[in-house]
Amino acid sequence: MKQQRNLLTLASAALLCAACAVPVGMGPGKPAALAIQEQGSFAVGGSVKRTPGNFDPIAQGAYTPTPNPQGQTLHGDHAYVFYQVPANARALPLVFWHGHGQSAKTWESTPDGREGFQNIFLRERYPVYLLDQPRRGRAARSIAPVEIPATPDEQMWFGVFRLGAWPDFYPGVAFSKDAGALEQFFRQAVPNTGPYDVEVNTDAVSALFTKIGPGILVTHSQSGTLGWRTAIKNPNVRAIVSFEPGGDFLFPQGEAPTLTFAGRPFTPPTIPLADFRQLTRLPIVVYYGDNIPDQPSANPGQEQWRVFREAARRWRDTVNRHGGDVTLVELPAVGIRGNTHFPMSDLNNVDVARHMAGWLQQKGLGR
Amino acid sequence: MKQQRNLLTLASAALLCAACAVPVGMGPGKPAALAIQEQGSFAVGGSVKRTPGNFDPIAQGAYTPTPNPQGQTLHGDHAYVFYQVPANARALPLVFWHGHGQSAKTWESTPDGREGFQNIFLRERYPVYLLDQPRRGRAARSIAPVEIPATPDEQMWFGVFRLGAWPDFYPGVAFSKDAGALEQFFRQAVPNTGPYDVEVNTDAVSALFTKIGPGILVTHSQSGTLGWRTAIKNPNVRAIVSFEPGGDFLFPQGEAPTLTFAGRPFTPPTIPLADFRQLTRLPIVVYYGDNIPDQPSANPGQEQWRVFREAARRWRDTVNRHGGDVTLVELPAVGIRGNTHFPMSDLNNVDVARHMAGWLQQKGLGR
Repeated sequence: MKQQRNLLTLASAALLCAACAVPVGMGPGKPAALAIQEQGSFAVGGSVKRTPGNFDPIAQGAYTPTPNPQGQTLHGDHAYVFYQVPANARALPLVFWHGHGQSAKTWESTPDGREGFQNIFLRERYPVYLLDQPRRGRAARSIAPVEIPATPDEQMWFGVFRLGAWPDFYPGVAFSKDAGALEQFFRQAVPNTGPYDVEVNTDAVSALFTKIGPGILVTHSQSGTLGWRTAIKNPNVRAIVSFEPGGDFLFPQGEAPTLTFAGRPFTPPTIPLADFRQLTRLPIVVYYGDNIPDQPSANPGQEQWRVFREAARRWRDTVNRHGGDVTLVELPAVGIRGNTHFPMSDLNNVDVARHMAGWLQQKGLGR
Repeated sequence: MKQQRNLLTLASAALLCAACAVPVGMGPGKPAALAIQEQGSFAVGGSVKRTPGNFDPIAQGAYTPTPNPQGQTLHGDHAYVFYQVPANARALPLVFWHGHGQSAKTWESTPDGREGFQNIFLRERYPVYLLDQPRRGRAARSIAPVEIPATPDEQMWFGVFRLGAWPDFYPGVAFSKDAGALEQFFRQAVPNTGPYDVEVNTDAVSALFTKIGPGILVTHSQSGTLGWRTAIKNPNVRAIVSFEPGGDFLFPQGEAPTLTFAGRPFTPPTIPLADFRQLTRLPIVVYYGDNIPDQPSANPGQEQWRVFREAARRWRDTVNRHGGDVTLVELPAVGIRGNTHFPMSDLNNVDVARHMAGWLQQKGLGR
């Protein structure tokens, strides 16, 4: 009940701040100190690339930006994880997994400087694990080479992430109009430092769940589909909270719908029924935000999410028909409005967190 | 005095653990909870690359890995910073800056899983700012493209970082012999995600000091020379603690020594006297570890540090002759033995931290 009280308090503060223009977590309403029992970081999973031969520490030992790899190794393809365990912690940790082009920053301070899900759920006494997936951020060492072209692309992301259709924000969008906020949002992007690889990613996060034991996986966007696959690999994934997952929902062979995406057929991937059944053993909640139309749209930043949300509806029904427990929350339908593709950092992220915390409690995951 | 007592307690625990094989920060001697008044993250500094033209949100709005950059921007070349302010904090924060091929992970958990300088100095009530420099880690977006070749090179780093001469550790080296520790050490490396650029780096960290105000800069290896240049740019750098800086000490024009590096002449860079004088206005301490010979060595992993430490000795004398306050600590000379190039995470890192905390107190920086 402490959890409900805390988030209700935060929600009240958010309402107050809508009036007084002081964001939660800043100014007079400064939150109490966090009691952190333990915090630290580590690499987990990954593989090793080896070049044959013998390494000579005299001939090959001097630093050079173009080393002779003979007899040398490269450890790569691991995940990087920063964890914090609050005092008096709940039993099951939250493992936060970012989306495409992002890092664990997704769950830290919001672009406008308020507390993100890292702090909000620490205050709710959940241990938190924030990961950078393989070939990204602080887990950037990849065993496969890559070129990073540094191509300007932010106006595309402004649309795909549903802040608006550049240069206009959607009316009522829950994103700060301060120029500094948009700049921070753009600067939280990070490139792939190796080829994107589903197995590399799911192997590393599965290794994390083997290391830490049972936990709740929280995914975002591209890590949505990676999360389904990780849960199939590792029974320590005891629940999934998925924010705005991509359309690659996994259907049993023969049961995938065919949808229409920008006028063309779109069919989500299928997997063997035995694998699919792993997804019926755990509670799952899927969230989508606002400004997703019901009818096909010429605006690609909306059309994509219309199709993915429709795939989510079909997938919920399919999993539940097979005995699973998927809840799909369309945030406007529960009165939480204006959300972009990043509900965890939108202006109303405390409301979103409160809904998520309620679901965790309802499913008995907050003990 | 609380600070001295805390670090003395930790040092005693370390001695106990040398006997009982339980590292500090784990097992029965588990440290008390940290009281964190505030924590969060942000990007700072950086620039914007713009492609001319107009962006069309319909024609260019669909996600593609190869976007048309017309009318689009890329925000890059910022630093990423994660900060924690403990309850009852001291006035001046510590700003931790990693070295070549590393990220802020350098200051977090050690490769063998003990507490690093992040936690140790939080327990000493210092606010801590841990940064990933531009084009690295969570600050990976660069306005300039790059290729990452994924070349195996770890045996070279084993030598350059003075763990030993591969495959042998140096006798008595203060690094855990558990295979897991070396693997974690290798996996904390991250590549450059853009060309290395002194101005880009020092501009971003100078912007950080403009944002946060006066603080103490803690550098490592390659960030040593970047730290001297940042202090010249920004008077909010009130002190520097430099662990094993590279040899690019900045001398006044006409005063640089010529040393011999692997049989060839080596001369550190020079700067105008007016800039150099900025380095005489603040207290500086420089640390070097163990296994650095006094005589020229055929082992490149030792020869490099012999020359850089000799440059440090000359630089200390030069700065102090101009009225500055540089202390050079050669750790074995003060009884702290076995240190690699990473004293902040070596087995005796608590002893190193205690020395550093004492220096900060002595210089009046721990108020």
